[in-house]
Amino acid sequence: MRNRMNVFESLESEVRSYCRGWPTVFQKASGSHLYDENGRAFLDFFAGAGTLNYGHNNPVLKERLIAYLTDDNIVHGLDMHTVAKRDFLETFQEVILAPRGLDYKIQFPGPAGTNAVEAALKLARKYTGRETIVSFTNAFHGMSLGALAVTGNSMKRSGAGIPLNHAVRMPFDNYLDGRTPDFLFFERLLGDSGSGLDTPAAVIVETVQGEGGLNVASPEWLRGLADLCKRQDILLIVDDVQMGCGRTGPFFSFEDAGIVPDIVCLSKSLSGYGLPFAVTLLRPELDVWEPGEHNGTFRGPGPAFVTAAAAMDFWTDEGMEKQTLAKRDQIEGELRGIAAAHPEQVTGLRGRGMAQGIAFAEPAHAPAVCRAAFDRGLLMETSGPEDEVAKLLPPLTTTAAELAEGLQILTDSVDAVLV
Amino acid sequence: MRNRMNVFESLESEVRSYCRGWPTVFQKASGSHLYDENGRAFLDFFAGAGTLNYGHNNPVLKERLIAYLTDDNIVHGLDMHTVAKRDFLETFQEVILAPRGLDYKIQFPGPAGTNAVEAALKLARKYTGRETIVSFTNAFHGMSLGALAVTGNSMKRSGAGIPLNHAVRMPFDNYLDGRTPDFLFFERLLGDSGSGLDTPAAVIVETVQGEGGLNVASPEWLRGLADLCKRQDILLIVDDVQMGCGRTGPFFSFEDAGIVPDIVCLSKSLSGYGLPFAVTLLRPELDVWEPGEHNGTFRGPGPAFVTAAAAMDFWTDEGMEKQTLAKRDQIEGELRGIAAAHPEQVTGLRGRGMAQGIAFAEPAHAPAVCRAAFDRGLLMETSGPEDEVAKLLPPLTTTAAELAEGLQILTDSVDAVLV
Amino acid sequence: MRNRMNVFESLESEVRSYCRGWPTVFQKASGSHLYDENGRAFLDFFAGAGTLNYGHNNPVLKERLIAYLTDDNIVHGLDMHTVAKRDFLETFQEVILAPRGLDYKIQFPGPAGTNAVEAALKLARKYTGRETIVSFTNAFHGMSLGALAVTGNSMKRSGAGIPLNHAVRMPFDNYLDGRTPDFLFFERLLGDSGSGLDTPAAVIVETVQGEGGLNVASPEWLRGLADLCKRQDILLIVDDVQMGCGRTGPFFSFEDAGIVPDIVCLSKSLSGYGLPFAVTLLRPELDVWEPGEHNGTFRGPGPAFVTAAAAMDFWTDEGMEKQTLAKRDQIEGELRGIAAAHPEQVTGLRGRGMAQGIAFAEPAHAPAVCRAAFDRGLLMETSGPEDEVAKLLPPLTTTAAELAEGLQILTDSVDAVLV
Amino acid sequence: MRNRMNVFESLESEVRSYCRGWPTVFQKASGSHLYDENGRAFLDFFAGAGTLNYGHNNPVLKERLIAYLTDDNIVHGLDMHTVAKRDFLETFQEVILAPRGLDYKIQFPGPAGTNAVEAALKLARKYTGRETIVSFTNAFHGMSLGALAVTGNSMKRSGAGIPLNHAVRMPFDNYLDGRTPDFLFFERLLGDSGSGLDTPAAVIVETVQGEGGLNVASPEWLRGLADLCKRQDILLIVDDVQMGCGRTGPFFSFEDAGIVPDIVCLSKSLSGYGLPFAVTLLRPELDVWEPGEHNGTFRGPGPAFVTAAAAMDFWTDEGMEKQTLAKRDQIEGELRGIAAAHPEQVTGLRGRGMAQGIAFAEPAHAPAVCRAAFDRGLLMETSGPEDEVAKLLPPLTTTAAELAEGLQILTDSVDAVLV
Repeated sequence: MRNRMNVFESLESEVRSYCRGWPTVFQKASGSHLYDENGRAFLDFFAGAGTLNYGHNNPVLKERLIAYLTDDNIVHGLDMHTVAKRDFLETFQEVILAPRGLDYKIQFPGPAGTNAVEAALKLARKYTGRETIVSFTNAFHGMSLGALAVTGNSMKRSGAGIPLNHAVRMPFDNYLDGRTPDFLFFERLLGDSGSGLDTPAAVIVETVQGEGGLNVASPEWLRGLADLCKRQDILLIVDDVQMGCGRTGPFFSFEDAGIVPDIVCLSKSLSGYGLPFAVTLLRPELDVWEPGEHNGTFRGPGPAFVTAAAAMDFWTDEGMEKQTLAKRDQIEGELRGIAAAHPEQVTGLRGRGMAQGIAFAEPAHAPAVCRAAFDRGLLMETSGPEDEVAKLLPPLTTTAAELAEGLQILTDSVDAVLV
Repeated sequence: MRNRMNVFESLESEVRSYCRGWPTVFQKASGSHLYDENGRAFLDFFAGAGTLNYGHNNPVLKERLIAYLTDDNIVHGLDMHTVAKRDFLETFQEVILAPRGLDYKIQFPGPAGTNAVEAALKLARKYTGRETIVSFTNAFHGMSLGALAVTGNSMKRSGAGIPLNHAVRMPFDNYLDGRTPDFLFFERLLGDSGSGLDTPAAVIVETVQGEGGLNVASPEWLRGLADLCKRQDILLIVDDVQMGCGRTGPFFSFEDAGIVPDIVCLSKSLSGYGLPFAVTLLRPELDVWEPGEHNGTFRGPGPAFVTAAAAMDFWTDEGMEKQTLAKRDQIEGELRGIAAAHPEQVTGLRGRGMAQGIAFAEPAHAPAVCRAAFDRGLLMETSGPEDEVAKLLPPLTTTAAELAEGLQILTDSVDAVLV
Repeated sequence: MRNRMNVFESLESEVRSYCRGWPTVFQKASGSHLYDENGRAFLDFFAGAGTLNYGHNNPVLKERLIAYLTDDNIVHGLDMHTVAKRDFLETFQEVILAPRGLDYKIQFPGPAGTNAVEAALKLARKYTGRETIVSFTNAFHGMSLGALAVTGNSMKRSGAGIPLNHAVRMPFDNYLDGRTPDFLFFERLLGDSGSGLDTPAAVIVETVQGEGGLNVASPEWLRGLADLCKRQDILLIVDDVQMGCGRTGPFFSFEDAGIVPDIVCLSKSLSGYGLPFAVTLLRPELDVWEPGEHNGTFRGPGPAFVTAAAAMDFWTDEGMEKQTLAKRDQIEGELRGIAAAHPEQVTGLRGRGMAQGIAFAEPAHAPAVCRAAFDRGLLMETSGPEDEVAKLLPPLTTTAAELAEGLQILTDSVDAVLV
Repeated sequence: MRNRMNVFESLESEVRSYCRGWPTVFQKASGSHLYDENGRAFLDFFAGAGTLNYGHNNPVLKERLIAYLTDDNIVHGLDMHTVAKRDFLETFQEVILAPRGLDYKIQFPGPAGTNAVEAALKLARKYTGRETIVSFTNAFHGMSLGALAVTGNSMKRSGAGIPLNHAVRMPFDNYLDGRTPDFLFFERLLGDSGSGLDTPAAVIVETVQGEGGLNVASPEWLRGLADLCKRQDILLIVDDVQMGCGRTGPFFSFEDAGIVPDIVCLSKSLSGYGLPFAVTLLRPELDVWEPGEHNGTFRGPGPAFVTAAAAMDFWTDEGMEKQTLAKRDQIEGELRGIAAAHPEQVTGLRGRGMAQGIAFAEPAHAPAVCRAAFDRGLLMETSGPEDEVAKLLPPLTTTAAELAEGLQILTDSVDAVLV
């Protein structure tokens, strides 16, 4: 065994990260469980950082996927018209957009969330003829250079090797602990021709900052932001890569707030099966792209089209939104108990829907809890600039019993760490 | 039918491109053939822009893929240790690296070629503490902001919406028609502390510029470049995304030249099955990444690990290198005939291995030939800054008979256009 | 006459500005008066935008200047050692630095304030190895590209023709009307490794924003800023180009606050006679320049060395600091009367020392008042992002009677505009 | 003496440079001579780096200057209309522009050459809406950030502390030793939409690179460049800061070539008396500045207007162009003798008009020669990226006897170094 673990050390780059906290070799997966090569089961409350909202190897999607592959349908289609893409487009229109009264053109920007963000930023700049993008403290939008420039994390930023420019940071909701009115500084800068803020092309925002500490933007704050953007003629981009596809309850995480972004980025759970897939949604009048002006090799993934269409049906048919909110209540109840038991060490609960977490006064407690949970058979991760939040992102399909089991492990783990 | 074509027009962004030249809806694929929803077969001499070197739905890979999925192995594994990843790493080491005496660490930078390039550029800058990257005229490296800055195409560059900096352009091999010695300007700049060229972190190069016009770098030129980089302590990055994985004959396109790059980017045909997948190969001493400093959601794709490992075995077992060179001879012979038949309209033949093309004096002739070929059941595309090259990238598995058929269609199409 | 005015229209660039509000041709000047070519006298309460603190053609300086020129002393000395430079250095040390307990090395960065700022920013970046400079809303630091990037005015910024980067804006004192604690956002960003603020090399600040609307930083705010910089290991640059040399009372405008900047920029009234001259003062440990790393043609101006040394003596001998504060009281008393007479149209009084102004609710009133004053023989200008402040910068040598006369004209002009 | 030298060491920044090669304290100056405080005379063949073309304290200019100051004319006039400015404009129009058939608007961009370059670059970018500026290897254009980005010297560039972007380097005339046709690479890049060269706003060029090694652009090369700019709709900026005002013979150094730049930068000898002064000349249709869009404190220097007008008259009246060419012959003759005497150590003669130099095979010989000359009473400096050129820039008014004396000292110094 030892030897075969060394393969990773000897051949894989030092950049690898999650594997350091979970020192085993995984092999199989089903629903909310992962299994290592020795057959040990782990409850997966990380779900591929929110990529597996419908569980590992969801059988409904799996059947459609294997049938698609078996029949020699198209696996790689560039941006050609394919039957699978048409089915995806029609399903997306009928199941997601139309019922919500949303009118978007769909761009396939490449297979990952960072590609969706790159396309969004490029188009916002091209459309407006402006350069500056406003992003928020503790934002995470991706690792390619355009997306990295609007990301907050200093360690990741320093990996760029060049100064990251054309971006301005504003405080996220409640960043200043309520000691200043929302958007006070931002509005003042925009209204003052001497402020030094060049008029932004767009604002990019996550409704819940999944990597930045599970910080939640309130519906009021989001409405205030959308209103400000409209008044100032600035485009509003919602990066729904991690919080979309039902993670917070509704399909889009911004639905509760009643706002309609100009551009929306989706990826992670979009394919539903963990396959690389992303879309950028554009208000139709923004679609000023030249043919081929943004391209890429993996923009027509047949398998992902098929599982994504199946996932949208699944999500609707199963009433996942309602289920998610019920499970959220279960999680929140348990977390409140943990917080109450450790009032000094736990500084707060974070998150929305089925993205929930516990913030610790001593940042080191969060990774310690995750390690203790791993030892007890539960996978979870930290979040926040100091890794001070222990984060739960279970599949939305996790059963009540599995949730109970996992939350008990979490409780035990917290107790073990905070002796 | 009409109506269902409108789905693409009404729902998909204007950025779509290939579909405009191939006005049908594709459904199935096998080997070197695509089939539209009416059952019409097309010989595919584009192969997903070089992504399908082993043909569509290669049965050897398909079997391994379906078995993997059927058994509920891990589909999405972030950067966790998985059995599938270990198998891939070991196969890559044993089948590709070790026999060639190559010593690289392997980074999974995200699912697309542009992610592999972004990681390469970031690491080169971080490692050297310098900012400038030297790239070449008519280079194509990707669409995210870091990769776009080293890409040449002006239409794609203007899509950035911000100035693209930190990059310096040098002439690719034979760019100046032999009227100046190789690297004359580059060496002079490097040797002159008053030249204004800030010492570059790295040079990034394609051995054959697939998008830029199938321009070929000679082995001598590549050796000269590698030698210059070594003397000047500049890192050499080979972007082998399109020309790697056997496209030119050997697995890596730089093997003929006998050079060993510091960093290599692979994607496209790496998974062998058209699944999104990419790696960045690093000389071990360059692996100065912090854990998680470059991350991403889709860096542990079980299905791609499996098909990629299968593809490497397939490529070796089938003796693809030898086959590729034989088929190249067949293609080149036919293309020479076409050129000879139209000495004034054809300005030259381009390419290497099974990436071959015809350059036309009148740029509009190249897309016209592609359209004529489509009408006759052959898919091929243009290349070059003026789309002046008709490009052939057939699967390496294309049979001699299929090649003959496709080349005959090409001959007919050229004749039809150049009446 | 008409014809000879056309010379300016036909030969001088449209960029000319002040001349548009003062449509005459000036010829002579003495003390607080300018005279046009028809012999009409104007009281000058603009003083070359604060360049003529000691009046036009101050006779004490004039005598020394003419003697210096007459005796064929060195006029242009690059950065050679000259007797005049030594006298300047010694006087600056003995009269200015030593009595205040200040320890600075003196750099001659070129003849204008913008050169002093460029040198300060370059050195701060070089010394710290960081790129970001924090500047404040409504800051004005100069027109060359480095200084322009930290300047707020949008019209001037757009003249750059390229995006202005590597700078972050923070709110100046009272920018948010006291609705948020000082430095709340700035401190939070600095203390949060996920904030997206790359650690700044330096903060650059004016104690009173002469161009930005005569906004005053309180001593408490300046101390808070200096303290924050010290705690966070960020350099503090005071741009004292307009407010230094006694304009606010003490020689340096930051003396009242009791702070000691790391770098200080001086120009405008430094030569005392309106001759181009600037210095950048550096804490000795910051002086990491290589010889010649920042150079320039006009860094050894003999005439300016001589008048600057004379001006420092004059300023001290005449007790200008005390005089300035007395005259300030005279000005403030009169302005309070004007404000009281127009409580709805005047939104506030601005400024410190002998830089004082009236802010109007209706921005157009400020230029109208300046035009009315010109018609009555008084020169003054506007300030602020909307030109909404009528600004007074009389020579510090203006007599009480002249002040009274000018303030009466101002009162009449305001009355005439605000009928 | 010792002590009073220490003033410079203890108080002046380490950035000081020329004084290190000339270890004395200068006091007076007249014509081609400088005198130190001990009365020792030095022949000045550096002339303030080309700022004193008419000699130190030229009596014709001196008389006008002292009269102007004595009569209390305006010393500092911002950009107001003044009699002195009108006289300067009219003289410039009548004596310089009209006789040469040149039609330019005149901008006063600030007192130094770097300000003139900043204004030129800003306007070129604003007018064209493009960002890139093409500059040449070994160019020197100034030390503020915009000008520094188009400067070649690596030591000076590294002083910026941030990456210098938006600029592309092309080879200066003969940079590649005639091994490639002029503009081959540049034209190819411009004509190729895939080259990666974003269309430049402007090209900026010196006709002789005064700091970069006295490299001379031939008239043919300059005509080729002007022609290329015209064909490609790129603005041509000539930086004539050091080579203008008669240094090479004609008033503008580009006259010989018969080209008409779109923008011209002048400074250094423009005031004629060593006073800080600069202009940017613009083709009238380029004058799209908003009023005040580029401003600055020292744009209306009465003394410099007066001496500049006097200098233009002096230059014309004295027939300086003819004189300069005659003196050039004298210098060239002598330098040829030196080169012939040391065929192995001297690699070539450089320069044009009265900017001449000797390039040494061993770079250290050039500063050694300058030191030897200083010891013998002659001031001269080095040039070039390795300081490998000993450079002569005597005042144009230097007499034949003075030239002979200085050249003899040079001959002796070279002999002493190359023993």
